[in-house]
Amino acid sequence: MATKAKIGILGASGYTGSELLRLLLRHPRVEIALLTADRRAGQAMRDVFPQFAPFDLPPLVSIESVDWAEAKLDLVFCALPHATTQKVVKAILNAAPSMRIVDLSADFRLSDPAAYARWYGHEHLAPELQEKAVYGLVEVYRRAIREAQLVANPGCYTTCAQLPVIPLLKAKAIDPDAIVIDAKSGMTGAGRAAREAMLFSEVSEGFHAYGVGHHRHMAELDQEFSKAAGREVIATFTPHLAPMNRGILATIYVRGRRGKTAEDLHEVLAKTYAKEPFVHVLPFGETPQTRHVRGSNMTFIGVARDRVPDRAIVVAALDNLVKGASGQAVQNMNLMLGFPETMGLEQIALFP
Amino acid sequence: MATKAKIGILGASGYTGSELLRLLLRHPRVEIALLTADRRAGQAMRDVFPQFAPFDLPPLVSIESVDWAEAKLDLVFCALPHATTQKVVKAILNAAPSMRIVDLSADFRLSDPAAYARWYGHEHLAPELQEKAVYGLVEVYRRAIREAQLVANPGCYTTCAQLPVIPLLKAKAIDPDAIVIDAKSGMTGAGRAAREAMLFSEVSEGFHAYGVGHHRHMAELDQEFSKAAGREVIATFTPHLAPMNRGILATIYVRGRRGKTAEDLHEVLAKTYAKEPFVHVLPFGETPQTRHVRGSNMTFIGVARDRVPDRAIVVAALDNLVKGASGQAVQNMNLMLGFPETMGLEQIALFP
Amino acid sequence: MATKAKIGILGASGYTGSELLRLLLRHPRVEIALLTADRRAGQAMRDVFPQFAPFDLPPLVSIESVDWAEAKLDLVFCALPHATTQKVVKAILNAAPSMRIVDLSADFRLSDPAAYARWYGHEHLAPELQEKAVYGLVEVYRRAIREAQLVANPGCYTTCAQLPVIPLLKAKAIDPDAIVIDAKSGMTGAGRAAREAMLFSEVSEGFHAYGVGHHRHMAELDQEFSKAAGREVIATFTPHLAPMNRGILATIYVRGRRGKTAEDLHEVLAKTYAKEPFVHVLPFGETPQTRHVRGSNMTFIGVARDRVPDRAIVVAALDNLVKGASGQAVQNMNLMLGFPETMGLEQIALFP
Amino acid sequence: MATKAKIGILGASGYTGSELLRLLLRHPRVEIALLTADRRAGQAMRDVFPQFAPFDLPPLVSIESVDWAEAKLDLVFCALPHATTQKVVKAILNAAPSMRIVDLSADFRLSDPAAYARWYGHEHLAPELQEKAVYGLVEVYRRAIREAQLVANPGCYTTCAQLPVIPLLKAKAIDPDAIVIDAKSGMTGAGRAAREAMLFSEVSEGFHAYGVGHHRHMAELDQEFSKAAGREVIATFTPHLAPMNRGILATIYVRGRRGKTAEDLHEVLAKTYAKEPFVHVLPFGETPQTRHVRGSNMTFIGVARDRVPDRAIVVAALDNLVKGASGQAVQNMNLMLGFPETMGLEQIALFP
Repeated sequence: MATKAKIGILGASGYTGSELLRLLLRHPRVEIALLTADRRAGQAMRDVFPQFAPFDLPPLVSIESVDWAEAKLDLVFCALPHATTQKVVKAILNAAPSMRIVDLSADFRLSDPAAYARWYGHEHLAPELQEKAVYGLVEVYRRAIREAQLVANPGCYTTCAQLPVIPLLKAKAIDPDAIVIDAKSGMTGAGRAAREAMLFSEVSEGFHAYGVGHHRHMAELDQEFSKAAGREVIATFTPHLAPMNRGILATIYVRGRRGKTAEDLHEVLAKTYAKEPFVHVLPFGETPQTRHVRGSNMTFIGVARDRVPDRAIVVAALDNLVKGASGQAVQNMNLMLGFPETMGLEQIALFP
Repeated sequence: MATKAKIGILGASGYTGSELLRLLLRHPRVEIALLTADRRAGQAMRDVFPQFAPFDLPPLVSIESVDWAEAKLDLVFCALPHATTQKVVKAILNAAPSMRIVDLSADFRLSDPAAYARWYGHEHLAPELQEKAVYGLVEVYRRAIREAQLVANPGCYTTCAQLPVIPLLKAKAIDPDAIVIDAKSGMTGAGRAAREAMLFSEVSEGFHAYGVGHHRHMAELDQEFSKAAGREVIATFTPHLAPMNRGILATIYVRGRRGKTAEDLHEVLAKTYAKEPFVHVLPFGETPQTRHVRGSNMTFIGVARDRVPDRAIVVAALDNLVKGASGQAVQNMNLMLGFPETMGLEQIALFP
Repeated sequence: MATKAKIGILGASGYTGSELLRLLLRHPRVEIALLTADRRAGQAMRDVFPQFAPFDLPPLVSIESVDWAEAKLDLVFCALPHATTQKVVKAILNAAPSMRIVDLSADFRLSDPAAYARWYGHEHLAPELQEKAVYGLVEVYRRAIREAQLVANPGCYTTCAQLPVIPLLKAKAIDPDAIVIDAKSGMTGAGRAAREAMLFSEVSEGFHAYGVGHHRHMAELDQEFSKAAGREVIATFTPHLAPMNRGILATIYVRGRRGKTAEDLHEVLAKTYAKEPFVHVLPFGETPQTRHVRGSNMTFIGVARDRVPDRAIVVAALDNLVKGASGQAVQNMNLMLGFPETMGLEQIALFP
Repeated sequence: MATKAKIGILGASGYTGSELLRLLLRHPRVEIALLTADRRAGQAMRDVFPQFAPFDLPPLVSIESVDWAEAKLDLVFCALPHATTQKVVKAILNAAPSMRIVDLSADFRLSDPAAYARWYGHEHLAPELQEKAVYGLVEVYRRAIREAQLVANPGCYTTCAQLPVIPLLKAKAIDPDAIVIDAKSGMTGAGRAAREAMLFSEVSEGFHAYGVGHHRHMAELDQEFSKAAGREVIATFTPHLAPMNRGILATIYVRGRRGKTAEDLHEVLAKTYAKEPFVHVLPFGETPQTRHVRGSNMTFIGVARDRVPDRAIVVAALDNLVKGASGQAVQNMNLMLGFPETMGLEQIALFP
């Protein structure tokens, strides 16, 4: 058996952290060598996520206590809050210049420092690293990711919107000025912070939109949509919270360009993704359900005709913690470390 | 105390039937004189809905067994499946020509027989009654409803879409050719029929669209939107099922016309509904949650600015079984029988 | 119309506070004169519970800012955290000696100061008031409550366990040494505090016991069971959390005494509650569901035979926020102020 | 690579059928050669469970259409309804006498034909096979299972109750006449049949007991508990339905015998299961949650002291579709075919 890569997970007490661990514990080429969780340092992983009780794992430590040079890790996943990440990544690379990093935060996703400052309200703390970071949407940037040292793992909403829309923009098949994305997410997308608005009794048995008109994920969409279209694209995007744990469904309203019908759009997507292991395009007219990708790294995409002439409705579904976060991060790791892209990601959806 | 009106509920074993009973049992001017449920005839209401066990109620009987002339009812609610209703209403009015009827099915909502035949695939069975039926969206047709003998209670999705959109169309404040309605409903909207697709394990913990591009509710929207705009309007409309019991949230994407901003649209709605007891417009920029109207007859509406120039996002929330069905039906009854419009409908939302 | 009683709700930003308001806003003899919420002082009720947006309500103020003598309230409900309550009640009664108080916390439920100290780990701060407090289980202490100035509203779990068990103990129909109470509660029972363990993603789609072997509610059960039996009774009690908002189901395992069968136990309960407005005993062999009492002040009780000889299974269901807290509190208020006991509590369960 | 075993799944359109497929598709020594689903014959697996859309699978066929001799399968899983199974298994073994079978129904679990007839109301249709069937609780009957041709996979409730209770009975550590099992199950335990009582709106947001006093699973418990104790044991057992998809939690009330304390009971269980791959005993005083075993083949067991002297509370949790059905069935297959016992069953729980 080949030697195993030594891996660290920073932020192991959050949902994307535990999801990384779920996947990596069954990855045949990986050894979990480091788990950090600042507020829970000193505890065992089983204290913060009891499902890991049967496993032998390193104890949770604080980031500060790690000697990065000594740790001799091959790759670390950063599953830390926004802004913190910039400092931590900088510190790691100073101490261990050859470390590979997959960052699950939003910190390195915007290649334009001005855009970053505008959306986040402060200057970027590591602009020299931001320059080198590769945007980790595998299906679009596979080649660059293989060579990258620092990969910015895309957001969950934006992955769900980009996979169906980018090929349509590249093919100039849709009007870039008439894209409406109505996205619905499960609650794990909001993270594990103890906030009143996330309590069971506040969010079960109900539905609502949030961040209407001004959600930060838009910055990422603007950047990638504009790149794909070769011109500026500003889409309408509304996020909603659904009373479920996992899953994002994006219902996307588009207008065919130059006579392109819904069937044409379907064909563009079906061809683009014919050989992709983690994107599955349903037969024309069928649309996906989030539950059928739950726990898996799959994205399901469907296209249907609208009765309004020229318009089509594209629906995409993925699991926000897997393809929308930790699964895509492992996919990035596989490319960066030269492993088969699907390794450790073969889990079939858990439904029901 | 004034004498009480004698009321019948046809289809008392379904969700809209039980919801009518929940409301009417506490209505001070009403006496429940008849409950029908064909497949459960001979049983007690408590056998089909145990929450009514503490109440003294007439037994469930079959529709066929009712002598309409003898029953001397003042008004009946029809909560029966589509098509059945046409025959039943005809039979009732033949036997008891002065009976008032509020019909909760879709059977009498389309005033154009051709539209009915096109959407439902068969000729209407009582076209002479359809002509006399009044569309029961109280906030729009209040005056006509007072005089009506037969009221067609609007659908749940369409009520949630019409209340925010109709005033905007009437005011010519939005582009009628660029309306996108993304609607999300709780599971009670699908009724109580035992179907695999409605099982708990099939619909909990997930989210999906259905009837994409071709949902029957569109017929009703087309009719009323076109009336309001004074020209043909065909909106894009996509229904979704959310893993919750009650509630519809409609996220509506519109384009302001002739320089109208989101703030202008908000003002139109705020003025329109300033004195309506069951429509509440939130402060500009705030959007509603379905849970805050659960179990009540309220509709909450919010308007926010989109970052795409000229566009606004309007969000409406109601309880599909109350304002979207049985509550609105009681509101119609109150008008038809000369009771105060809010009588029996004062319940405050049950949250959490 | 009679004059209305002036009422205050202390702790209006919690779930029992909002539930009190839901009920009292529709109570014909009550005027809401005061709402406190220390951390939200200065805000409007609609900011903490948007369902109240359509209503005209006093602003939220801090308890400290209230001049009790000047306020001239007839009665206040205390929906405050444990221990805080003792101080607040003392202060109120010092300033306004004729004020009536219904306390929803656990602070005045234990009549024995030693028991209090043992279970709560500190001396009671107002033992002189504890002496005068009446335990507010209406069905047992109705007469004393009418005369009480300070009523200690029972806990939700304990109400659900006492209503079925106390009559059986009083009738000496069951073995007091073999009572096992397995109780399941919805999440609102845990309150509105922002704690990780109460997040949607932590509690949906799963089930667990907590406080196994040592839950504080036991103190209340011990006191009342022992009183009813005329000897010391220590029951086994295990609380569980179910992924739902409202409802407690108590499955209670008992052994008939001196040849008493399950049918005999059923008869005891049926007779005891024949005329009670808020306790309904189902036909023998049927057992209740929490959803059928949701939002109502009802308790449903069922009794079934076990196949183990001499044993019976008693199942009780109530809504923890209504009969288990705020509804029972209003029932107490009605007695204390001489209103009809059921006034404002007629809501029928919201199911589905 | 070793040759793969050819496997059939009978009843692939139900939940245990699809769960078998989820596990077996990732089992390195298995090839899916046959999928039956009588009512869906002619369809593809993706039509009944869309999560399998990305996979190449044999079409669904009817059982009747299978030529068992020709099929040359190594093993079939029967995930068919009660009674049907007896006929099908008989027919298979007549046509293919060396076939190995794991049956997930209740048909072959009771070794005593009289007990079968008493609980199921009719004579067993294949008593000669029932004699040869081995009860498939791996942790108890591992040796016999290796040699078995026909294994009766245990029920979900009974697996959850037997794993904690049997070692205690064998060790004579608890009173066999005072066992109370209060069990709570997710909705998938009720299967995929379209019944009103299983609709989302009927079971979400509520909790109830069913089959109180007379549930068929008791027969299996009686048989195995009595074997373990060496005398007749009749336990009290009450099943409940919780509003969640997966998981069983059994709260078990026992009385220590001859001075055995809760700590002693914990020690018995900890020792018994120290080396079992799929049973994990938590530290004394901790109790498990179903969500932490969701999707995995693990059983978590906890023991806590009751404050009632001599009594202990044992809590066990498993996923009813995995260790309670299909996972345990694969575990049985692994033993029967000589594969490592944990092969294909390494999935870690999906939480959140």
